[in-house]
Amino acid sequence: MEFQLDRAQEILKRTPATLKALLDGLSDEWVTSNEGAATWSPFDVVGHLIHGEETDWIPRARMILEYGESRAFEPFDRFAMFEKSKGKTLGELLDRFERLRRESLRELDEMNLTPEMLSKQGLHPELGTVTLGQLLSTWVVHDLGHLGQIVRVMAKQYVDAVGVWQAYLPILSR
Amino acid sequence: MEFQLDRAQEILKRTPATLKALLDGLSDEWVTSNEGAATWSPFDVVGHLIHGEETDWIPRARMILEYGESRAFEPFDRFAMFEKSKGKTLGELLDRFERLRRESLRELDEMNLTPEMLSKQGLHPELGTVTLGQLLSTWVVHDLGHLGQIVRVMAKQYVDAVGVWQAYLPILSR
Repeated sequence: MEFQLDRAQEILKRTPATLKALLDGLSDEWVTSNEGAATWSPFDVVGHLIHGEETDWIPRARMILEYGESRAFEPFDRFAMFEKSKGKTLGELLDRFERLRRESLRELDEMNLTPEMLSKQGLHPELGTVTLGQLLSTWVVHDLGHLGQIVRVMAKQYVDAVGVWQAYLPILSR
Repeated sequence: MEFQLDRAQEILKRTPATLKALLDGLSDEWVTSNEGAATWSPFDVVGHLIHGEETDWIPRARMILEYGESRAFEPFDRFAMFEKSKGKTLGELLDRFERLRRESLRELDEMNLTPEMLSKQGLHPELGTVTLGQLLSTWVVHDLGHLGQIVRVMAKQYVDAVGVWQAYLPILSR
């Protein structure tokens, strides 16, 4: 598929409700268990998505439109949520993500992006030249990737419980 | 995590709403695209989950309780949905899955499973001896695995659109 703004928005606007349907009200065991040392729990992932709304997607889109390749993006802190989520409940994080995503999509709408604007180039601090269309495509894939991570982390809690069926469940060995 | 019936039910009851939040009303492009020849689209996966409700989980649980290891399960047809989903809309499939899952969970409740019943053994046609607890754990992981598959298939539609960001998005190379 080529990137199309309205197709991308379809996914971006669904992510908060998908996360709530999947996670809200689950037992702590499902929500705070991870895949082992230095890996993330579903709770951590939601915090990471919040930090993306605050510092990554819309701020970088604005930087491309304002500065093009003349100024590199701020590096994204992939671990900020460990501090920021402390003392919060998952329900609070899910609500906050929903609010921030709604706001992000409103700002995206207000940019009135044209095909020319979508092909405008920016500078990633490590990857080099990127376009606004690529940034927005990455936002979509980033959402889907972290949904995939959440269900994988949850599935792995049952790696022993499934017994010999493990052989038929590829998600347990990813 | 050890298998616990109430923890497993938490996941099983959420899957229909999660699928609806993620997929209902999406453009056909997102819903019917797959990962290439002989792979499944999100539409196909929902049909596969429906077939599982009809022929796999509860029917096999009943077989374990009634016949133990004296009768092997019917082999599960992993391709039945290609024929059965024909002519249906995704909305119809999502509604049907929601109905069937609700019914499955009602039947599961009515079994009044005790720890002894959960350790009862049955016979898988290929894997050999399994327990009822392992079957129900597998049901949970199967749900989560197919949710993971759906988001991966959707993400891969943007494998080119993300440009150099592909290097940071492991879901695109799974």
